[in-house]
Amino acid sequence: MKLNLAENLTELRAKSPLVHNITNFVVMNYTANALLAIGASPVMAHAVEEVEDMVAIAGALVINIGTLSPIWVEGMKKAMLAAVKFGKPIILDPVGAGATAYRNVTLSELLNTASPSLIRGNASEILALAGSNIQTKGVDSTANSTDSLQAAKLLSEKYGCVVSVSGATDVIVSGEKVAYVDNGVSLMTKVTGMGCSASAIAGAFFAIQEDGFEAAISAAAMMGVCGEKAFEKTKSPGSFQIAFLDSLSELSPEELVELAVVRLL
Amino acid sequence: MKLNLAENLTELRAKSPLVHNITNFVVMNYTANALLAIGASPVMAHAVEEVEDMVAIAGALVINIGTLSPIWVEGMKKAMLAAVKFGKPIILDPVGAGATAYRNVTLSELLNTASPSLIRGNASEILALAGSNIQTKGVDSTANSTDSLQAAKLLSEKYGCVVSVSGATDVIVSGEKVAYVDNGVSLMTKVTGMGCSASAIAGAFFAIQEDGFEAAISAAAMMGVCGEKAFEKTKSPGSFQIAFLDSLSELSPEELVELAVVRLL
Amino acid sequence: MKLNLAENLTELRAKSPLVHNITNFVVMNYTANALLAIGASPVMAHAVEEVEDMVAIAGALVINIGTLSPIWVEGMKKAMLAAVKFGKPIILDPVGAGATAYRNVTLSELLNTASPSLIRGNASEILALAGSNIQTKGVDSTANSTDSLQAAKLLSEKYGCVVSVSGATDVIVSGEKVAYVDNGVSLMTKVTGMGCSASAIAGAFFAIQEDGFEAAISAAAMMGVCGEKAFEKTKSPGSFQIAFLDSLSELSPEELVELAVVRLL
Repeated sequence: MKLNLAENLTELRAKSPLVHNITNFVVMNYTANALLAIGASPVMAHAVEEVEDMVAIAGALVINIGTLSPIWVEGMKKAMLAAVKFGKPIILDPVGAGATAYRNVTLSELLNTASPSLIRGNASEILALAGSNIQTKGVDSTANSTDSLQAAKLLSEKYGCVVSVSGATDVIVSGEKVAYVDNGVSLMTKVTGMGCSASAIAGAFFAIQEDGFEAAISAAAMMGVCGEKAFEKTKSPGSFQIAFLDSLSELSPEELVELAVVRLL
Repeated sequence: MKLNLAENLTELRAKSPLVHNITNFVVMNYTANALLAIGASPVMAHAVEEVEDMVAIAGALVINIGTLSPIWVEGMKKAMLAAVKFGKPIILDPVGAGATAYRNVTLSELLNTASPSLIRGNASEILALAGSNIQTKGVDSTANSTDSLQAAKLLSEKYGCVVSVSGATDVIVSGEKVAYVDNGVSLMTKVTGMGCSASAIAGAFFAIQEDGFEAAISAAAMMGVCGEKAFEKTKSPGSFQIAFLDSLSELSPEELVELAVVRLL
Repeated sequence: MKLNLAENLTELRAKSPLVHNITNFVVMNYTANALLAIGASPVMAHAVEEVEDMVAIAGALVINIGTLSPIWVEGMKKAMLAAVKFGKPIILDPVGAGATAYRNVTLSELLNTASPSLIRGNASEILALAGSNIQTKGVDSTANSTDSLQAAKLLSEKYGCVVSVSGATDVIVSGEKVAYVDNGVSLMTKVTGMGCSASAIAGAFFAIQEDGFEAAISAAAMMGVCGEKAFEKTKSPGSFQIAFLDSLSELSPEELVELAVVRLL
């Protein structure tokens, strides 16, 4: 398999896809800025009254359950059904899966509403979603991404989707295919919304690349490489979050190819 | 007409008006920081239970429909009625007008509830609000601000308010009067909440300057000039959003006058 | 009394307590980043459907009424009852107390639901909460922290809790005990969410230090010292907010002890 990392980033910036996010209150601003920085166009809209119209004009739908409540879940379901109707990719970010019963029940309902194109989470979340009896610590992972390979395979099989597990090594699974992305820095876990931004940026790549496995790898590589570039500028979390946004904008397709460390199995 | 840009900024900083925002989840933090940086005092409150009390003590009310839902619209209407009752200026930011039917219907309802002192949006939004059959791309503009002059005039006439269209050239209309502000940089479109901050800052100027045309011009000039100052420091969007806040705080009234490029017709 | 500022900070970073925040839309991102920067683990969850589960795994609960509405108040009450049940400290941040009747009524309800371990606010808020007939200007203080000593004592007595008043001098009261913290810079009032972050960081200290008076002093000293460190880097509010997050991460326990100016009465 040949990866077209450079072409994907170039196309993303050329097409500037509209990414419709129904996401949590904590990360909305950072996610929107990350999408703008990479060259996409973000929109946030959650009301049942308008999600269908918004999905219709969007290139991808990103669902993130970070700060959920019943009325938001209604909007998420309606948007997911609209995405199926209009043939738009759905990215599901199961923030805090395993932390509360309500999150687990909601995730079941969402996954019964429509199969996503991509599930992207940290290892704790992916393990919880796959039915492991794991207690996540709020929204931060307590497991290693590479330990979640079987869980990722199970979810990929069950929902016919790509699964991307963020961590020191990102693990991306699509059916029998597995990719590892060895980019990124641990400081990324000290900035809120990094995982959520990874999901949103995956949405942007899914909007312009039909091959979901490749889109997910491109997103993970972009995130990791930009994390490394930001880390060259600063080792502290406040300035890092800003440097990261700068990197999303500054990174050239050639640099992405040069710096990405992707292993395909 | 003589513009008192320097005096307006000086007075804003001296009086530090309280600006009551009912705005969207994406930009609340940035908007609050922009208002603090320029020298105003922000408050966010949306519940029908308290908006009237908050409007009563505020210098201006800013309504922004970026992430609307029915319960928030109720709060917006009640706040607008309170603003009329207490004689406070209302700024309306029609985020995403034209993107969904729900936004269009809501905007009609809000405009039927009370006439704003200022409508501020991008060209797509102003065109959509004026009834042009334009499809906005989510919340980003697909039209040029100067193409929206007729639409701005129509809205100004219909609602007896000032209309400010943000873009490469800002267009401000008040009845027969038209002003163009040629400040700003295109990087401002790569940071989320810039338009929303323009509306909030307009609220601060309306709170201290009764002449709405002059208040709107002052706000547009301040935004544009501070964008240029920030652009001197950085060309990347993450650090730009921070540098912009710094500029709002650092810019002197004399610099504002010196750098503002305003054409009055 | 011997203060263990260094040990408290060391232990906070070693244990990385989970802090459950039900807070306002404006500051969620900044608060989460502040908690991550200091070494804690933030989680935001407000739905009645899940707050009990989240409190159960958290080390402290932080309630902040900055952008309240009835459905959020329900979640706050349920979470407070769960905190009592599970023996978790509750931090209450009465944002905008005195600004609207709804805020005052809600604060009464919350305080009748459960006694907090700490009430932390600015002087206007503490005075309003203690029944002074003060009109706060939105969410910004119009009084001096040292003028609120009697109000703080009254609240500490009434609710059997620690009371921390932020200002040029922070005043911390626990029954008969009073401490003053003379750190911090006035630029902190020009960044939104500083007070809210102070409350969240207090939550992190309460999670690892049973002595509430000492936990509150540690949090106030940490905030003030990090404000001073950030001020060494920049005098403008945008870059200050970022430098402040960096300082929360960079400050060593030894520096905290060296720079903290605490007077115990």
